[in-house]
Amino acid sequence: MASNHQLSRWRVQPIIDAALREDLGDAGDLTTDAVVPAVRLASASLVARRSGCIAGIEVARWVFETLDPAIEWRALVEDGAEVPAGAPLARIDGQARALLTGERVALNLLGRMSGIASVTRDMVRIAAPAGATIVCTRKTTPGLRALEKYAVRAGGGRNHRFGLDDAILIKDNHVAIAGGITPAIAACREHAGHLVKIEVEVDNLDQLAEALAAEVDVVMLDNFALDELVRAVAMARERGVPTEASGGVTLETVGAIAATGVDLISVGWLTHSAPALDVALDM
Amino acid sequence: MASNHQLSRWRVQPIIDAALREDLGDAGDLTTDAVVPAVRLASASLVARRSGCIAGIEVARWVFETLDPAIEWRALVEDGAEVPAGAPLARIDGQARALLTGERVALNLLGRMSGIASVTRDMVRIAAPAGATIVCTRKTTPGLRALEKYAVRAGGGRNHRFGLDDAILIKDNHVAIAGGITPAIAACREHAGHLVKIEVEVDNLDQLAEALAAEVDVVMLDNFALDELVRAVAMARERGVPTEASGGVTLETVGAIAATGVDLISVGWLTHSAPALDVALDM
Amino acid sequence: MASNHQLSRWRVQPIIDAALREDLGDAGDLTTDAVVPAVRLASASLVARRSGCIAGIEVARWVFETLDPAIEWRALVEDGAEVPAGAPLARIDGQARALLTGERVALNLLGRMSGIASVTRDMVRIAAPAGATIVCTRKTTPGLRALEKYAVRAGGGRNHRFGLDDAILIKDNHVAIAGGITPAIAACREHAGHLVKIEVEVDNLDQLAEALAAEVDVVMLDNFALDELVRAVAMARERGVPTEASGGVTLETVGAIAATGVDLISVGWLTHSAPALDVALDM
Amino acid sequence: MASNHQLSRWRVQPIIDAALREDLGDAGDLTTDAVVPAVRLASASLVARRSGCIAGIEVARWVFETLDPAIEWRALVEDGAEVPAGAPLARIDGQARALLTGERVALNLLGRMSGIASVTRDMVRIAAPAGATIVCTRKTTPGLRALEKYAVRAGGGRNHRFGLDDAILIKDNHVAIAGGITPAIAACREHAGHLVKIEVEVDNLDQLAEALAAEVDVVMLDNFALDELVRAVAMARERGVPTEASGGVTLETVGAIAATGVDLISVGWLTHSAPALDVALDM
Amino acid sequence: MASNHQLSRWRVQPIIDAALREDLGDAGDLTTDAVVPAVRLASASLVARRSGCIAGIEVARWVFETLDPAIEWRALVEDGAEVPAGAPLARIDGQARALLTGERVALNLLGRMSGIASVTRDMVRIAAPAGATIVCTRKTTPGLRALEKYAVRAGGGRNHRFGLDDAILIKDNHVAIAGGITPAIAACREHAGHLVKIEVEVDNLDQLAEALAAEVDVVMLDNFALDELVRAVAMARERGVPTEASGGVTLETVGAIAATGVDLISVGWLTHSAPALDVALDM
Amino acid sequence: MASNHQLSRWRVQPIIDAALREDLGDAGDLTTDAVVPAVRLASASLVARRSGCIAGIEVARWVFETLDPAIEWRALVEDGAEVPAGAPLARIDGQARALLTGERVALNLLGRMSGIASVTRDMVRIAAPAGATIVCTRKTTPGLRALEKYAVRAGGGRNHRFGLDDAILIKDNHVAIAGGITPAIAACREHAGHLVKIEVEVDNLDQLAEALAAEVDVVMLDNFALDELVRAVAMARERGVPTEASGGVTLETVGAIAATGVDLISVGWLTHSAPALDVALDM
Repeated sequence: MASNHQLSRWRVQPIIDAALREDLGDAGDLTTDAVVPAVRLASASLVARRSGCIAGIEVARWVFETLDPAIEWRALVEDGAEVPAGAPLARIDGQARALLTGERVALNLLGRMSGIASVTRDMVRIAAPAGATIVCTRKTTPGLRALEKYAVRAGGGRNHRFGLDDAILIKDNHVAIAGGITPAIAACREHAGHLVKIEVEVDNLDQLAEALAAEVDVVMLDNFALDELVRAVAMARERGVPTEASGGVTLETVGAIAATGVDLISVGWLTHSAPALDVALDM
Repeated sequence: MASNHQLSRWRVQPIIDAALREDLGDAGDLTTDAVVPAVRLASASLVARRSGCIAGIEVARWVFETLDPAIEWRALVEDGAEVPAGAPLARIDGQARALLTGERVALNLLGRMSGIASVTRDMVRIAAPAGATIVCTRKTTPGLRALEKYAVRAGGGRNHRFGLDDAILIKDNHVAIAGGITPAIAACREHAGHLVKIEVEVDNLDQLAEALAAEVDVVMLDNFALDELVRAVAMARERGVPTEASGGVTLETVGAIAATGVDLISVGWLTHSAPALDVALDM
Repeated sequence: MASNHQLSRWRVQPIIDAALREDLGDAGDLTTDAVVPAVRLASASLVARRSGCIAGIEVARWVFETLDPAIEWRALVEDGAEVPAGAPLARIDGQARALLTGERVALNLLGRMSGIASVTRDMVRIAAPAGATIVCTRKTTPGLRALEKYAVRAGGGRNHRFGLDDAILIKDNHVAIAGGITPAIAACREHAGHLVKIEVEVDNLDQLAEALAAEVDVVMLDNFALDELVRAVAMARERGVPTEASGGVTLETVGAIAATGVDLISVGWLTHSAPALDVALDM
Repeated sequence: MASNHQLSRWRVQPIIDAALREDLGDAGDLTTDAVVPAVRLASASLVARRSGCIAGIEVARWVFETLDPAIEWRALVEDGAEVPAGAPLARIDGQARALLTGERVALNLLGRMSGIASVTRDMVRIAAPAGATIVCTRKTTPGLRALEKYAVRAGGGRNHRFGLDDAILIKDNHVAIAGGITPAIAACREHAGHLVKIEVEVDNLDQLAEALAAEVDVVMLDNFALDELVRAVAMARERGVPTEASGGVTLETVGAIAATGVDLISVGWLTHSAPALDVALDM
Repeated sequence: MASNHQLSRWRVQPIIDAALREDLGDAGDLTTDAVVPAVRLASASLVARRSGCIAGIEVARWVFETLDPAIEWRALVEDGAEVPAGAPLARIDGQARALLTGERVALNLLGRMSGIASVTRDMVRIAAPAGATIVCTRKTTPGLRALEKYAVRAGGGRNHRFGLDDAILIKDNHVAIAGGITPAIAACREHAGHLVKIEVEVDNLDQLAEALAAEVDVVMLDNFALDELVRAVAMARERGVPTEASGGVTLETVGAIAATGVDLISVGWLTHSAPALDVALDM
Repeated sequence: MASNHQLSRWRVQPIIDAALREDLGDAGDLTTDAVVPAVRLASASLVARRSGCIAGIEVARWVFETLDPAIEWRALVEDGAEVPAGAPLARIDGQARALLTGERVALNLLGRMSGIASVTRDMVRIAAPAGATIVCTRKTTPGLRALEKYAVRAGGGRNHRFGLDDAILIKDNHVAIAGGITPAIAACREHAGHLVKIEVEVDNLDQLAEALAAEVDVVMLDNFALDELVRAVAMARERGVPTEASGGVTLETVGAIAATGVDLISVGWLTHSAPALDVALDM
């Protein structure tokens, strides 16, 4: 599902290096260095303790390869795969020290990414039949946005803005300062490059009408009641403008929201509050 | 409660800088730069949308001060405070651009830290009456361990190891490679410095007996049944060795676990799966 | 003209630090340290030796403030100002050592940025009357893209993509691999987020027709003859799609290109080959 | 010509990494990732669109190898080679994604370096017959000085100081503060190490006489008229002191300046204003 | 002797990179680049000019491998080995440029580490028969603590705290602020995690008695006279608390101190003042 | 004595930051944070426990200011001052936590720098009357070269090369590869810039004659006997070439070496083996 997207080791390596330095400090893995001979080899399996959707399997590999470049790695699943509890994810052979020392960092990254992919997949399964796309937000973990946005894609969702720098999203405070939706959009049009889309967050149908009249590219319908969503979608569709619902989206509510016909549903919870998937290393 | 602990801006600033660079890229905040005049001033309040325990209030301040060193900040709560939904946390006056541009990074950090403090507080409230201390693990977000361990303390918990480098924790895989608990402990004693404590994870009472005979500093009782925990605590107490329960700890189970008399209960979930506290910036 | 855009010192400082380290090495400014007493104060003026359009005046200030935080700085022009040869740009009072040691780095940055702003301004002056906007490309100096894109804005131009990550531009090689313009656009639509615009580079009117049929957001008309440009603009305008001319744009040709009615004219030369503006520090 | 000089990948890699991060951001190459399958291979040629002198061919290679370590690279020219328009520079086989994603960064570096080498070569060709050596200055692009100074050498020039830290150059402001050329030189002699050469910039023959009397290692004759240059060279030669002409050096004037007999001619324009050589990647 | 301890290249590489950049600057090794053809190969031997205990042999290897990844390296000794003057330590074959350019950085690291290992070994030889362990302190070279602590282990010593963050050491100033040893220990117990040991520095037997009553984990006997040390050891042994002597430890005094029965003797001099071992590269 | 040289905080701060991070890790100063209230203020004095020559007094200040920007600092000596044992060096008032937490890093830097300045001063006192200048080498601590070279200047010595990049020093291995001193010098002349001096290391009078004939800038007389030094100095003086003695220089031998009339005496021991000066913080 996410086959077109690949993480490049070159871009992920600095995150892995920082994570390992954070865990190893200057003294290193006191326990493993004391107990395990440097020459000792071992085999291990990455295993999902709970069912879920996997993301970050290559990231785990790179953690171990950082500590032992000669490690042998056999992935048993690809990112985006849904696995049952107990499923083996990868088989690893290499220095026992590298396996034990890298275990926690590898699991912390894989567990977090797979947790995000899993809740995304759950939401996608509900929303997709109605034609709605699940998208994430900028409510991500500082330092890990690229990995978390990738995990959303692995789960079947799509990405909203990556940052404040790649698209315009006019929110209530911007509107207030600009003195209205129309002047806010005008200001953005005047300053933004020609490849920058403009989305406006609206709180009600009047604001929506104003935004549509100003020919925005996308409208975000924030905390609309379901019946209002239906009317908003109709208004926007007439203009050919995609609609995005946001606010209060949960597994319980997402089906009804999708049923209103909105094109996109954005969910901060995917990245700021998804529980980690329980993954483990069995030796 | 966490009054002895303070985060130093000097140590947190690199995290803030990286988070802002991640969000702003090279082009910066397209929306705000287009809509908001550079000279415009504004006032805003940080507000908790849900009740919870706050951690990271100074971190939020430093985010805004990074963008506008002249900002005026008035904190209305201290870290460790429990607040009701709707409670104002701080009052900010400064450049409107700095407030809007820094909002998401500040909230991402404050929300995550307060989410951790809040679930910690919930657990502490249940476990403390029985005399058990809630501690976190190394299952933290790569790059944010210092902030997350701090949040646990703000919530009333205590910290386990910060990394592989500051204490010894012998786990099952170490035991297997060493050929038993006794030789594993002996190897650690031989190599570790004199200020390093040794904890051993045991799976049953026989292992516990062996660990106690080898005079470890702390025993981790992993996935023990409640009745076994009671017996284990008795065995360890005889030797004057503190006990730590781990595995399957939830808000539902923590009370019964604490009632067994264990000294410490470690909970990975505090840091790897705590939902963010919903905090917002109202202008 | 560029009043809405501001460089933030927080984001420019790492560039300044790196530039100063590159120039000062470990031994520092041997000449100044030998000749100038540490306590000696001095006054200096930044002066434009040639006429041009200024960009980066604050960057120069921050260079000197890095070396002497107590420096007094009085800017006499703002970014975007056009000045005659000999015009003073700023007045500086502070430690003589800071002025002499920081001079070259400050001038290297200010001269390069103002050189870009100046050629941009020259092009804008010719193209604007016909309604065409001058935009830059990704042909920038590695490490200085943010400063150079800012300089283009200061000169009255607008920015194209900041990087490969903030918009889609389908080029000939993409088309060849995808097997045509239509499937290339389809693939992008399937994978890109909803806030990402899609531009396609076309080489002839047939390709243009295909791109318009596929409803791209912008078309880049690469190396079109003038008469073809006229026809292309007519075709695109019918669909409401903005047109961008690229290839072989010089001060000599830009007027004729703008007269064809294209909306945008992109010029790599603005950033990869603009001669630096000659600026100096007079003490 | 530059065969003794080699760039080490170890030292250039940080520049390449920073350039790629600048271009790819967190979201990566949206277009290529959407259009090009990860497994797709491709062949490409680096080609010079205009005639010129090449510098940085290995730098281009390392850009692509950073993205695809398994790339096959066959260089068809060496740095320092002069090539006609249309000349192929290298043949590359590897992942299509790596070729497309790395193209711009590779060309930006290669084009800039070759642009500098080309103008240097043009000047060298004119000045060399008269025995004058073309040297660059510290007017380089912040962050790229090592690459630009290398490009000057590839073009047949030589390097002046690399920074303020490796030699002494006493300029007019230093002289003014020291109270004369003689005390300025004396101060430098007193403080500098025994392996540091001292050059003095002089504006007229009186200053030259003073500098020669003070036994400087090199004299810089700044903005001298041609007849004054001739007299200055004679004065300096008597003392065995090398002479360097600076100021107003262009392709038009360099021949006449060289004919005065000066040993060195320094040209800031080589690095601050050389137009990039037009290089392209043909797939 | 230090066979359980290994330095990981991954963790040492940043130190090596920084050291090489410090030595090579932007211009590189002027002498070698001018004199030695890039293709020239050479053989060399690392040799100890004086007898001593070796530490860092792999670090030297990595320095050369950084400059020439294809270098052939044959180590003739292992860290911890004692060698006579003139002993060859390793044989190296590779690019002559890499050998010459890396020589000084490799020797600076190897010489410093071996110097520390050598003085440690000398002390250990004297103290070990009496059963005392030699430990280092935090008086290390900023930036090189991990290497220096490793060198102490290679010499047969053990490590004290790696930093302020991995154990508690209550010193006189802490006692003064806390209002006594007992409250200081109580404060630490209240705040520290359960895997943190507490050591207290005491100046006399009364303080020792107070510390022992408060059940600290280790006592540091600072600047005790020999007869007081004997009494202190007896008091602590009764409580089963290890003793550490510190202050004024030299090769002359360490034997007598060890004879008092103390468990540990800490020596700042090992790391802050050990002379480098004279090692050289013979080609 | 070193009044012309100043360390800039801007350049030293990265070293201080790294040193503090190394000592504080992620958990910070466990002892101080537990024992000392955040609001507690304190006064302290930096004191020299032994007599010596001070270098780095401002570096110590910046360490404390990093932890508490509001600290009050009163320096009682300047770098280069010689102080008796017990001399107070500075008075500090500020947060007790900052004083205690920064103490070790401040002392490690100040002690090392002052140790170097002290041994330099001892050597200078002996060598200066004979007219010889003491210079350091590149045998410095990786990462601290700038500070150590500064300390040599503070002690009254001068600096040799800062790195391989700022001057040419042809050693025996270069000579061997070049096929003689004359071709080695010729190669350097051909490739080096005009502001680069050339020094040659010679082992005997024949080599010296060859080097002088080739008109090098400086000769290094390596491990010459005293009578040979006298003859070598005479030979070089005839040519006006400065002489530098190296090899086996100690406090015992330096006087006799200086008496031979050499201009410079280089001593690696100043930086690689100088014992730290014992400095302390008294509260």
